[in-house]
Amino acid sequence: MANPGPGNSITLRIDAPSNFSVTSELAATAADAGAVITALDVVESHPTTIVVDLTCNTIDEDHADRIRDAVEALDGVTVRQVSDRTFLMHLGGKLEVVPSVPLRNRDDLSRAYTPGVARVCMAIAEDKSKARKLTVKRNTIAVVTDGSAVLGLGNIGPEAALPVMEGKAALFKQFANVDAWPVCLDTQDTEEIIKIVKAIAPVYGGVNLEDIAAPRCFEIEARLREELDIPVFHDDQHGTAIVTLAALHNALKVVDKKIEDVRIVLSGVGAAGNAIAQLLLEQGAVDIVACGRNGAINRDDEYTDAHRIELAATTNPRNFKGTLKEAVVGADVFIGVSAPHVLDEDDIAAMADDAIVFAMANPTPEVDPVIASKHAAVVATGRSDFPNQINNVLAFPGFFRGLLDAGVSDITPPMLVAAAEAIASRVDDEERNASFIIPSVFDPEVAGAVAEAIVRVVKAGKE
Amino acid sequence: MANPGPGNSITLRIDAPSNFSVTSELAATAADAGAVITALDVVESHPTTIVVDLTCNTIDEDHADRIRDAVEALDGVTVRQVSDRTFLMHLGGKLEVVPSVPLRNRDDLSRAYTPGVARVCMAIAEDKSKARKLTVKRNTIAVVTDGSAVLGLGNIGPEAALPVMEGKAALFKQFANVDAWPVCLDTQDTEEIIKIVKAIAPVYGGVNLEDIAAPRCFEIEARLREELDIPVFHDDQHGTAIVTLAALHNALKVVDKKIEDVRIVLSGVGAAGNAIAQLLLEQGAVDIVACGRNGAINRDDEYTDAHRIELAATTNPRNFKGTLKEAVVGADVFIGVSAPHVLDEDDIAAMADDAIVFAMANPTPEVDPVIASKHAAVVATGRSDFPNQINNVLAFPGFFRGLLDAGVSDITPPMLVAAAEAIASRVDDEERNASFIIPSVFDPEVAGAVAEAIVRVVKAGKE
Repeated sequence: MANPGPGNSITLRIDAPSNFSVTSELAATAADAGAVITALDVVESHPTTIVVDLTCNTIDEDHADRIRDAVEALDGVTVRQVSDRTFLMHLGGKLEVVPSVPLRNRDDLSRAYTPGVARVCMAIAEDKSKARKLTVKRNTIAVVTDGSAVLGLGNIGPEAALPVMEGKAALFKQFANVDAWPVCLDTQDTEEIIKIVKAIAPVYGGVNLEDIAAPRCFEIEARLREELDIPVFHDDQHGTAIVTLAALHNALKVVDKKIEDVRIVLSGVGAAGNAIAQLLLEQGAVDIVACGRNGAINRDDEYTDAHRIELAATTNPRNFKGTLKEAVVGADVFIGVSAPHVLDEDDIAAMADDAIVFAMANPTPEVDPVIASKHAAVVATGRSDFPNQINNVLAFPGFFRGLLDAGVSDITPPMLVAAAEAIASRVDDEERNASFIIPSVFDPEVAGAVAEAIVRVVKAGKE
Repeated sequence: MANPGPGNSITLRIDAPSNFSVTSELAATAADAGAVITALDVVESHPTTIVVDLTCNTIDEDHADRIRDAVEALDGVTVRQVSDRTFLMHLGGKLEVVPSVPLRNRDDLSRAYTPGVARVCMAIAEDKSKARKLTVKRNTIAVVTDGSAVLGLGNIGPEAALPVMEGKAALFKQFANVDAWPVCLDTQDTEEIIKIVKAIAPVYGGVNLEDIAAPRCFEIEARLREELDIPVFHDDQHGTAIVTLAALHNALKVVDKKIEDVRIVLSGVGAAGNAIAQLLLEQGAVDIVACGRNGAINRDDEYTDAHRIELAATTNPRNFKGTLKEAVVGADVFIGVSAPHVLDEDDIAAMADDAIVFAMANPTPEVDPVIASKHAAVVATGRSDFPNQINNVLAFPGFFRGLLDAGVSDITPPMLVAAAEAIASRVDDEERNASFIIPSVFDPEVAGAVAEAIVRVVKAGKE
């Protein structure tokens, strides 16, 4: 499965004898070792030696070591240094906090700081709601994690989660001009997290909960939604549900099926799984079977967490009992937000004709997408190196842009649906096919379309 | 005392008849009403009317109203709108969070976010100290308040405190390239504040406590210094003490007295007062009398807060008892960090020859500086409209620049002294006189000099 990628890009600084064929030898040797070469620069040239920077994508750190060894095995060649472009990019972090007002002289200072600022403070002290106009609360959200369920890496703690939260904040700014700040908490106690987020909330116009382990994340989200007057978005739930619905919307058009008619099997009853199920039901889906490690959630088994209890009450109308592999037989849609390799080729072959497979476990999908596409009509993953990447970045920047612009205090299901439809509609009828059910994450129009959709929903609700 | 200032700058948009003398009439009328005119622009011209933007500094909002009324009393003139430049500047807040790395394409995204970021996360999970290199922790501090003692405005709450914290964060970036983020807490419980700051600390390389009421601020600072592995700076204490010592250093040179010989009277036993006393003692001062509302802190009275207890134990060797006014008789140095108008002309006249008066209460000093300068040799305030502004902005940006660069976990008295000396030394022997004992806040060399001084102290300590 693993291919060399830019996330594992390295630059080898190489001392080599200066002869006519040396650069092509270096390139050929690295390529033979599996490197995907992206640049080769001669940075110094001396009478008998040259210095070469060879930049290439690799699979992982072991692969990088093998490439280094292969190059160094060449006659007269030494590798002076291997620099990792991902680590270089992270030096000093990925965010800056910059003034958005001029501070060139005394007059500027008198307005932005004392004494002028005192009048702004007093205006807010008299009417707290003015903070939404006169402070960063207007445009800023908190990206909150406790570091307990980061990417596929698990409970790595708040410091190690920070690069992800910084990246997320950078995406918010880049794609939707939302200022986002990482809040990585050194506690995994539900009540403490709730208390802390409430205490820091005056600065923020919204909260994005991120990579907090289930079921804690549900309790935190529910309580904060109730107790805060700013919107609380749980990307693992809302974000994933929005992009999944967007992709499903277009995939169903490709295979000419209707959401109310299809049999849907969901693998994963964590944060994402439950939210997807609820949003699909909201949109008219009827037959959803949600499978955890112990098979299908059904009406007869007893569950202890609120989340499985909700799934048992709302899904599985046929009260199917059995394993995931049994559930997918004859199903029209498979949606995976669970674990690598839970399905194989036979399972996909056993699905209904014109099956839709969304295998979104990251980085390794529930089923190999190349194999799945032998039998399914539409295949999508969370990966960038296959067609149809279902990526939350399509949803969250524009969604918060809309929430902030509309001054919303609560997120409602119609907003999630509107966001999904806005994303889906960025693929028009001519473009839509089995390999293009969802727009590119670099489509510059997506965030604006999502934001407008949210503002429309809010305005319609107020009329 | 109050003069028109740029912190109260307004722009009047005026409809007026178009005749030769109208603009000069408008200007004269506004000036007669006490406005200091900074700009007059004709923004539209029609056959019989013109539209004028008149921008001027005012004293306060009442004064702005009087100017408006005066202008509108002119024949044929109407004021369409009064816009307040300070409020305009605050719309949407004063900070932005921007990516410091490129996110132009898929390759960038693969490094800054998934999948590449996972390797950076794992490197930090294996060795937490790497967060100081690979995340914003390298260069970012938290500016923490509970909104309980903001400027001279008192307990106005976290939302209303935010414009000050934003301004402070903007100054950190502008003057020393330190990324600073406002943390305005919706709690005033000491234990909760301590718990929260500890919980959010993974993201930050330092903490700047700001505008938290005494004595709570001391407990919070002491506990955080003990329990966190990043430096905790209390600007109301450390920052004020540094700039006061810097100014005193040069003022004593001007009057040719030595710190160990002078009688010093301190008005204010809050956050600033105690810190100033301790730092002056550290620098060799012997005779300090600290006065609160009930007179001089002495060795016989009993005190309950830790802070007065410390002052009683360390200052007032003559065990002077009496009021502030009694204490200043014959004193060489008065340092006020207390309240407006606690001294009058007679009090300053009663001080020793070549007296030094630092009247730093904001916005209204302990004694009118114009009156004080009739009797004292050197007068300084916290205000920008008199010579010798003792402003913390000279200290905190460079101080944190140094702390972050040196990777410091604790602030020590030698660092405070070194910072004060670095600031004082920016005024050289030729420049130094009674009206110039401290550099301008816009001196671009100050922050760097302070930062270097901190790094030097840390290096010397390690040798």
